[in-house]
Amino acid sequence: MPFSFSPDDPTFIIHRGGKMEIAPTVALSSRDDLSRAYTPGVADVCLAIADDPSLANTYTWVSHAVAVVTDGSAVLGLGNIGPRAAMPVMEGKAVLFKAFAGVDAVRICLDTTVTALAPSFGGINLEDISAPRCFEIERRLDAALPIPVFHDDQHGTAVVVLAALRNAARLLDRKLGDLRVVVVGAGAAGVAVTKMLIAGGVTGGDVVVCDSRGALYDERPDLSGAKAEVAALTNAAKLDGDVTTALRGADVLIGVSGGQIPESALAGMAGHGIVFALANPTPEVHPDVAVRYATVVATGRSDFPNQINNVLAFPGIFRGALDAGATRITEGMKLAAAEAIAGVVEANLAPDTIVPSALDPRVATAVAAAVAEAAGRDGVTR
Amino acid sequence: MPFSFSPDDPTFIIHRGGKMEIAPTVALSSRDDLSRAYTPGVADVCLAIADDPSLANTYTWVSHAVAVVTDGSAVLGLGNIGPRAAMPVMEGKAVLFKAFAGVDAVRICLDTTVTALAPSFGGINLEDISAPRCFEIERRLDAALPIPVFHDDQHGTAVVVLAALRNAARLLDRKLGDLRVVVVGAGAAGVAVTKMLIAGGVTGGDVVVCDSRGALYDERPDLSGAKAEVAALTNAAKLDGDVTTALRGADVLIGVSGGQIPESALAGMAGHGIVFALANPTPEVHPDVAVRYATVVATGRSDFPNQINNVLAFPGIFRGALDAGATRITEGMKLAAAEAIAGVVEANLAPDTIVPSALDPRVATAVAAAVAEAAGRDGVTR
Repeated sequence: MPFSFSPDDPTFIIHRGGKMEIAPTVALSSRDDLSRAYTPGVADVCLAIADDPSLANTYTWVSHAVAVVTDGSAVLGLGNIGPRAAMPVMEGKAVLFKAFAGVDAVRICLDTTVTALAPSFGGINLEDISAPRCFEIERRLDAALPIPVFHDDQHGTAVVVLAALRNAARLLDRKLGDLRVVVVGAGAAGVAVTKMLIAGGVTGGDVVVCDSRGALYDERPDLSGAKAEVAALTNAAKLDGDVTTALRGADVLIGVSGGQIPESALAGMAGHGIVFALANPTPEVHPDVAVRYATVVATGRSDFPNQINNVLAFPGIFRGALDAGATRITEGMKLAAAEAIAGVVEANLAPDTIVPSALDPRVATAVAAAVAEAAGRDGVTR
Repeated sequence: MPFSFSPDDPTFIIHRGGKMEIAPTVALSSRDDLSRAYTPGVADVCLAIADDPSLANTYTWVSHAVAVVTDGSAVLGLGNIGPRAAMPVMEGKAVLFKAFAGVDAVRICLDTTVTALAPSFGGINLEDISAPRCFEIERRLDAALPIPVFHDDQHGTAVVVLAALRNAARLLDRKLGDLRVVVVGAGAAGVAVTKMLIAGGVTGGDVVVCDSRGALYDERPDLSGAKAEVAALTNAAKLDGDVTTALRGADVLIGVSGGQIPESALAGMAGHGIVFALANPTPEVHPDVAVRYATVVATGRSDFPNQINNVLAFPGIFRGALDAGATRITEGMKLAAAEAIAGVVEANLAPDTIVPSALDPRVATAVAAAVAEAAGRDGVTR
């Protein structure tokens, strides 16, 4: 059945012609302007950079430009819709980069992902690339390139989830290390969230990660790669069962699956718990349902409270990394970003305020400062 | 010796931070804005495009976006300075695209050139890629992609040279078909200029093309590929000799070599002739010298009269191609562009006005209209 939509829908109206354009930042009204911005003047700038490549950071947009790269193989919760249909998301991301952190992002939808883009940008933000390919692509690019490479679906999500879980635990007067956590979804986000939570203080053995076949446990025969790695870090009890089984007595449900979780499964959770249903555009469980079984409920959507969305992380993380001249993004930088996001609303925590609003202008500034400082601490600056 | 420059030079001052930025064209100040421009609203736009890929032209920037792609192997007259040092030129180009034709261009400096970029853009402008690789890359991309692919160093230059030569001939009351033309340089520009001039009315047998070893002639033993093809089209007299020999009695010198041509060589030209010394940033012969031997002198630079620069062609050509939904750029479209450029100043021709100023706002509009019309005539519209 063809997808039906109305061109008069406000969402479609604002998308007409796309969401971004190029704006020259130099005057082009006189012959002198042209001689400087273009030939012949530009040749001197090229020669200066050829002689000292680091001058590209001063005399081109590299120091504030990021490539948002995708092959469209895993877009939102929509799956493999391809690079062309992924464009509205990538343009949206580019717009958020600019509006929140002054970072100029160009979304590039590739049929295949390549390292060759690096000379044009100060960083590469990978996006919507399906697991397990995304792990290998990121590993390879990160090793090959002298600029930060960041797969936002993994690490952006993980950073914001850690920030949100810190504040939710604080609000409920619980310690991260005492929480029983179930992560539903073992794709890019599930794997990264699990690792980040453990790095941030959650006890690995008390985390159970579920994929479509149920709980991951060490030596589950069908596991390999990233899933096997996560299985080895988690589920100390070697629980073998479905999501409903895993959720029995759990304090925290983190949905990053794109699927649905039945209300009956939530009913078995420990009381006064936490539900993050982060699938976009349709959460794994509707927040109106989740609130019956949990004290703190969050989704990834802009139209509900507690939006756990990467937009809280990626603009400031890249701004900070670019400001610091970071060559990569370390775990320390990600932890610092999570702490900074959590810190913005720490003084006025409430069940519907565990993360700042996506529109809060303090977030990117705080994240950028924390990330730049951590980059220096971790010794990854140029 | 390191390249020396002053950071206080006006050219370097205007290059600080680069010459372009991304400008969002949608509001992002409320939660509703976010819900529409990003998640969850954006998902519907993605699904609509997944269902009907042509909707990307309406709901993303594809219809006004062009990739400026280079590997930095042949930048201006500076040679293979690499993708990073090529960036100021590419940014300059992007800025001209926007200022003159409302086309949003993103320059991408690749270590290797790839077809994979196509889904993100409505056209691909290849740039500063060395010959003979550029011929094969363009041929392959043009065959593979459903969007216009245009190697500006070839065709942009060729279009503007044809426009300029038409007007110079008109001014001197000469016919194109009667001119003896020497093209110095048999790289990307030299090959394309020669073919375009012949398509535009110059007699092939009366053209002599020289490379660094002298005149090309059919069956010169060291020729292959594009040079052999050009040799077969030109030099009916099979003249074998250097530039000085070739220029004896010639009416027109077109320098697209990046090298230097001695004054003594110009002294042998026929009187009342035409010299286009187009190497950037340093013309093959200084215009103050050339004017002693020719009536009409032009260069590629912004700071001399008669600037024969691609900026007169590429913004309008892509604007016209995008407006028409052209799938490629035909010879008819290039000839139409040349005619349109020449037409803008036809009524007030003078030795220092054979082409419009690069700043003349009528140019891109006239070129776009002519190119779009030719695309329809040639049947290459979607």
